[in-house]
Amino acid sequence: MSGAGVSEVTVRVPMNIALVKYWGKRDEQLILPLNDSISLTVDKLTAETTVRMIQGVGENTVEINGRRVELSSNKRYQTVFDEALRLQRKRKEDSNQNETECISHHFEVISKTNFPVAAGLASSAAGFAAIGRAIQKILNLNDTQANRLARIGSGSACRSMFGGLVHWKKGEKEDGSDCVAVRADSENWKDLYCIILVFDDERKKVGSSEGMRRTRETSTLLKHRIESVVPERIEQVKKAYESRNFQDLARVIMADSNQFHAVCLDSVPPIRYLNESSWRLIEVVEKFNQQEVKAAYTFDAGPNACVIVQKDDVPAFIKAALQDISIPSEDLKSVEEDLNVSFEGPLNSSILCSKLIVSPMGGGPADS
Amino acid sequence: MSGAGVSEVTVRVPMNIALVKYWGKRDEQLILPLNDSISLTVDKLTAETTVRMIQGVGENTVEINGRRVELSSNKRYQTVFDEALRLQRKRKEDSNQNETECISHHFEVISKTNFPVAAGLASSAAGFAAIGRAIQKILNLNDTQANRLARIGSGSACRSMFGGLVHWKKGEKEDGSDCVAVRADSENWKDLYCIILVFDDERKKVGSSEGMRRTRETSTLLKHRIESVVPERIEQVKKAYESRNFQDLARVIMADSNQFHAVCLDSVPPIRYLNESSWRLIEVVEKFNQQEVKAAYTFDAGPNACVIVQKDDVPAFIKAALQDISIPSEDLKSVEEDLNVSFEGPLNSSILCSKLIVSPMGGGPADS
Repeated sequence: MSGAGVSEVTVRVPMNIALVKYWGKRDEQLILPLNDSISLTVDKLTAETTVRMIQGVGENTVEINGRRVELSSNKRYQTVFDEALRLQRKRKEDSNQNETECISHHFEVISKTNFPVAAGLASSAAGFAAIGRAIQKILNLNDTQANRLARIGSGSACRSMFGGLVHWKKGEKEDGSDCVAVRADSENWKDLYCIILVFDDERKKVGSSEGMRRTRETSTLLKHRIESVVPERIEQVKKAYESRNFQDLARVIMADSNQFHAVCLDSVPPIRYLNESSWRLIEVVEKFNQQEVKAAYTFDAGPNACVIVQKDDVPAFIKAALQDISIPSEDLKSVEEDLNVSFEGPLNSSILCSKLIVSPMGGGPADS
Repeated sequence: MSGAGVSEVTVRVPMNIALVKYWGKRDEQLILPLNDSISLTVDKLTAETTVRMIQGVGENTVEINGRRVELSSNKRYQTVFDEALRLQRKRKEDSNQNETECISHHFEVISKTNFPVAAGLASSAAGFAAIGRAIQKILNLNDTQANRLARIGSGSACRSMFGGLVHWKKGEKEDGSDCVAVRADSENWKDLYCIILVFDDERKKVGSSEGMRRTRETSTLLKHRIESVVPERIEQVKKAYESRNFQDLARVIMADSNQFHAVCLDSVPPIRYLNESSWRLIEVVEKFNQQEVKAAYTFDAGPNACVIVQKDDVPAFIKAALQDISIPSEDLKSVEEDLNVSFEGPLNSSILCSKLIVSPMGGGPADS
């Protein structure tokens, strides 16, 4: 873990997907959200990240998938490193360590995601969660401190720090000290899987920071969502998850995804993340659920779908999706091998999914 | 106007478009809305309608554009005829006319719209408004009574009964007696034009009655819209219209169209009326408005766009739209002749508009 003046930790942290969505910041600098959100990790999509904390003056460096990140235009990394050093100093002061001289440190981060960063799958959340967790280990920080590191890097990153159902509480305090993500279940529901369908899009996307700002400033519905709808839904998700009630869970997940996109549409000018393919997928899920609710779609700030099902329903859902959506055959093959099933197709369909990923959920991060 | 036991009136009534949208009924039978709405007529799109009230027992008949309407599956017509006869009886009772015997009557309606009924341009609203106004003339009813006739035929029809800005008040009473449409301006703003772009759609549409019911029953945002957002917007529209402030008017129109579609998306299952073409048109308007807000889009329960501009800006807007949207050349030619302008194009574009209509607004119905 450490050499001469070098501490090094490698962790693997999955991305996460919100079941009740985060949209809108009450503090842009500290990345404090306007409302609570609740999520599960997508265990197969990870960022494996090595953080080196090196004694002495030097340039901080970050490399993602072999490419150097320009830190002058990505201020968030510096914010996280500064906070890490502040926490280190604070701990030394608290423990009355007799080091009055200030020892300089700098950081090297090397991160590899096992999914394309460009696919719009919240890679930065996984990356910052990994950095937060690695620094936690290096500096022996508590969960709240690690949470804060991840959060000030990329808001929802703080939800990737645990397995099981994770509840990111917005908190009330101005300094963000009560804004933390915590586990909200007594035991992980291992039966939950997600099927991610990547739908490409040529449109220029409204980035989530810009989108959140626009919605907060212009939507006349957002306030009501935050005050009256979200708190109830958080409780509904917890209850459904704890009692393993898939149908109730699925209903809240879909309603909240739709409401998030509704407040985007209620913004000025309107923000649109769902495209024709997303809507086609919604129809596939509606049809699949006709007899019984067995799948729940959820969409973040982009057209890609995340469909949550119980493990046994994965093959049936993919089979249903293939009626309307073309899925790359190598991805189908990989699912066939993983789950020991076989699909027909892909059929000819006008809706193209460029990548299909099937993953268990809720496993949380792992040291490696 | 009348022969032996036959009263006949012909009127021409335009459709109307809401600037603040009606979505949700508080009473499905009487068609009482959950919120106020405010509208302008689209003067070029009319239903010319002849109503004959014939003494004696006979079958009611309705013919629209040469096709007989099956009244057993369109109960609304019967509701309107019954109400007309009730009003007639009531008036006779009130005036103490000594006719104790009940004279039977039946109705013949012949209606012609000058736009395709299938284009999703609220033809039924224009039709029922025409029936209401014709019966008003036959029976010498007051405006409130005529309003009610139109409304119980097709809710928003009551907004087509006047020129100028028309405010349909939801009312509070259970019998709907205070639910009326009234003029809300002191003088019609004759400079307002609308440019309607018809975008075809293969999708099976959720009808507006079904859609309203679904939103009322399932959206957690609708109540807030109704209670807190709409009343303010009605006042904003009135003020902007009265002071001829186009920019303020346009901003409210676009925000309310978007919010209507947002509450549709917030319904379970979500309702979607905007398609790719609609969104392309939104982008055209955004771009057109970059320097100054000179156009406002609004969409009803379908993908067709209604773009409201001041008369002088009609050619510039069409020119801008032609950059991204293909418009039938015969429609362009007709606008060129009407406005004495000339356009280039249509360019090759993937977005096809199947019909373009340019019309002055706010003129209201005319006897013919």
